[in-house]
Amino acid sequence: MAIDLTSLPRPARDDSTVGTMARGLVGSEILKIAAQIRELVAKGQKVCNLTVGDFAPKEFPIPDGLRQNIATALQAGETNYPPSDGVLDLRQSVQRFYERALGLKYPLEGIVIAGGARPIIYGTYRAVLDEGDTVVYPVPSWNNNHYAYMLGAKSVVVTTDAAHGFMPTVEQLAPHLPSARLLCLCSPLNPTGTMISPDALAAICERVVAENREREKRGQKPLILMYDQIYWVLSFGGVKHVTPVELVPEVAKYTVFVDGISKAFASTGVRVGWGVGPPTIIARMRDVLGHVGAWAPKAEQVAVARYLDDTQATESFLQVMRQRVDERLEALHRGFTRMREAGLPVQHIAPQGAIYLSVRFDLVGKGGLKTNDDIRKLLLEKASFAVVPFQAFGLSEDTGWFRLSVGATSVKEIEEALPRVEAALREALAAAK
Amino acid sequence: MAIDLTSLPRPARDDSTVGTMARGLVGSEILKIAAQIRELVAKGQKVCNLTVGDFAPKEFPIPDGLRQNIATALQAGETNYPPSDGVLDLRQSVQRFYERALGLKYPLEGIVIAGGARPIIYGTYRAVLDEGDTVVYPVPSWNNNHYAYMLGAKSVVVTTDAAHGFMPTVEQLAPHLPSARLLCLCSPLNPTGTMISPDALAAICERVVAENREREKRGQKPLILMYDQIYWVLSFGGVKHVTPVELVPEVAKYTVFVDGISKAFASTGVRVGWGVGPPTIIARMRDVLGHVGAWAPKAEQVAVARYLDDTQATESFLQVMRQRVDERLEALHRGFTRMREAGLPVQHIAPQGAIYLSVRFDLVGKGGLKTNDDIRKLLLEKASFAVVPFQAFGLSEDTGWFRLSVGATSVKEIEEALPRVEAALREALAAAK
Repeated sequence: MAIDLTSLPRPARDDSTVGTMARGLVGSEILKIAAQIRELVAKGQKVCNLTVGDFAPKEFPIPDGLRQNIATALQAGETNYPPSDGVLDLRQSVQRFYERALGLKYPLEGIVIAGGARPIIYGTYRAVLDEGDTVVYPVPSWNNNHYAYMLGAKSVVVTTDAAHGFMPTVEQLAPHLPSARLLCLCSPLNPTGTMISPDALAAICERVVAENREREKRGQKPLILMYDQIYWVLSFGGVKHVTPVELVPEVAKYTVFVDGISKAFASTGVRVGWGVGPPTIIARMRDVLGHVGAWAPKAEQVAVARYLDDTQATESFLQVMRQRVDERLEALHRGFTRMREAGLPVQHIAPQGAIYLSVRFDLVGKGGLKTNDDIRKLLLEKASFAVVPFQAFGLSEDTGWFRLSVGATSVKEIEEALPRVEAALREALAAAK
Repeated sequence: MAIDLTSLPRPARDDSTVGTMARGLVGSEILKIAAQIRELVAKGQKVCNLTVGDFAPKEFPIPDGLRQNIATALQAGETNYPPSDGVLDLRQSVQRFYERALGLKYPLEGIVIAGGARPIIYGTYRAVLDEGDTVVYPVPSWNNNHYAYMLGAKSVVVTTDAAHGFMPTVEQLAPHLPSARLLCLCSPLNPTGTMISPDALAAICERVVAENREREKRGQKPLILMYDQIYWVLSFGGVKHVTPVELVPEVAKYTVFVDGISKAFASTGVRVGWGVGPPTIIARMRDVLGHVGAWAPKAEQVAVARYLDDTQATESFLQVMRQRVDERLEALHRGFTRMREAGLPVQHIAPQGAIYLSVRFDLVGKGGLKTNDDIRKLLLEKASFAVVPFQAFGLSEDTGWFRLSVGATSVKEIEEALPRVEAALREALAAAK
């Protein structure tokens, strides 16, 4: 007879067993929404699910070559500990990939492998910041609020707007940089699917370099730029991805790239990411991540190394990948353009990058709808259309803007859902009259 | 032409780009020793490498069934995000495994999956401790010093001795428990290969329960017990592994188990671990690990779930696994017994568990040998016998004790190395005269 422990106490807000940091940690808003969707689906409702920044493997399988390489590596016994900074073959392969595709030749000491891009973000925060240090980031953006909280860092938030594609400008950032230790940018941006322009990024990088020249004279710690480009191979409509370092090479000393296979190769569950940057910071990230144990599995590391070197296979996969993401984004783009032209209160930004579209349902203050979350519930309940409000990405104002993520859905599902959305909007407007 | 960044500055002790915590973080001592060994091997020297707590896949392959399950899961498209607390099938499978093999029936909410056992340890520290809190642990032990440092926790170290199998006693621990928030135990113990006795563990658990009864009355946060049992299926010589909860069920409310497939199934590079304990703590560990992103790859999670349920396959694998570890430990045991009987200054503890043997080379103060590290170098240089001093596990005194890890070596290599060790000891003694 086993000892029955099934009635051990469940978590509570005022729980004394855990520490203050852990007790205050907020789980992902998106996952809470996901739980509601699961309930509806369980009741038999068909939901067009545009919430999770993930892929449905049926719609977006991983590359065949990558899958085969993993099986081969397992068969070859690549099953013991990887080195704490990653398998050498993979670090070399990333080195070649960056030189070939981004025109940036990094030293091997500037490349660290981890179990996805999240650990690279956490590692950057943990390597750079001490408690009480200031981190500057735009909102909406993904999870910077949570990382800042975990580190006990002071968040300085710059709220961006649709007119600037939800990207921060140097004018907005500049006043906050002198007191900051870390500036976090992401392009293509999760949640907005927008990309920073070369001019805007160059201006910010020049400001970072100028700030650090001053700090060097004063013997102060530099301002570090974290540049999350996990979606960089996914760009659409002729918008070109740019890096801080190609625009302002001097910023390389202060820039950490966050990257990996998760989004580019539809491999969120394969858990291989990398950080690229100055060896000074990368070495400490390796130490931090080594103790945390956030390593990528070894067979997957070996497999990705071989796969990335197969430029023909990667290029043809990415071509199909881009096309499949693009046709979903375009379906939404067409639908919302039509609704807007029909006078409905919607606004959106044409597809640029990542797997996201920013859409505004301009219903706050109409027919009893007070918050973005009210609108979210309306769309879910009336149109079986599941989206995530920008509040889940650190925005406090209820502006009616939402993230629509297309990785887990088909063009057909989108096209079937759009008339339901239109009907729900008309109904809401009628109720508001 | 790529921008050449290969001369970016390399890490330095006084580096101002990183934070104070990261700058002070000490990398693994074992990895430094490993680098020296690689140099020797590169020069063509054959080294009996007993340093890394890992497996050579040729000597210890992962189970065939597990490897096949991973390939099947990849083929079935198990390649997107796993849930942040782990794939439900695996949590259920671990639940059944603990009920079947340990007689402990946990609720599903008490089980979290992570990318190995390290993240579970980090998650426990991070969920329980705030900066300045006190953590008590015995030394030698694995990496508690590093985790305490990372968290800014106050370490209270209890130095154990060979007479007690390097396990702490309740008498040693008791004075430190009233001020502690976390007590870390490990059995079978890395680095010593020893196991705690049921009586010793029961006494400690009763003390933890008594302490927490007092704290509850005073409204204070409880003392949490982290019990690292990652090696628990590997026990030898009839010594039985016991858990805190089976001995003192009331301690379940305060106990977090650290566990996974890494050592039991020779799968250190597969990156699947789990934490089992009160849902109050497990839920916060899930939140912490979710943000850190230290998740196990999804195909591997699905594969382990299926594999663990195949009790016949796991049992027959573990039988062979135990036998293969045991024959290596026994070869060392025989060799050092013979040397001791021949009057050489060696002492060791008969194999009990894990993949380690504790051996004392009693040479400190003899022939110019001042520290354990002097002895380590002597054995490496004169006998090509690579071992790790207990200093790498937080011990400060130079007692001559070392960890010998057998996962990456063969019986033949051990048997060939032992005469070299004997010769080196004789030479050292001769020099000391």
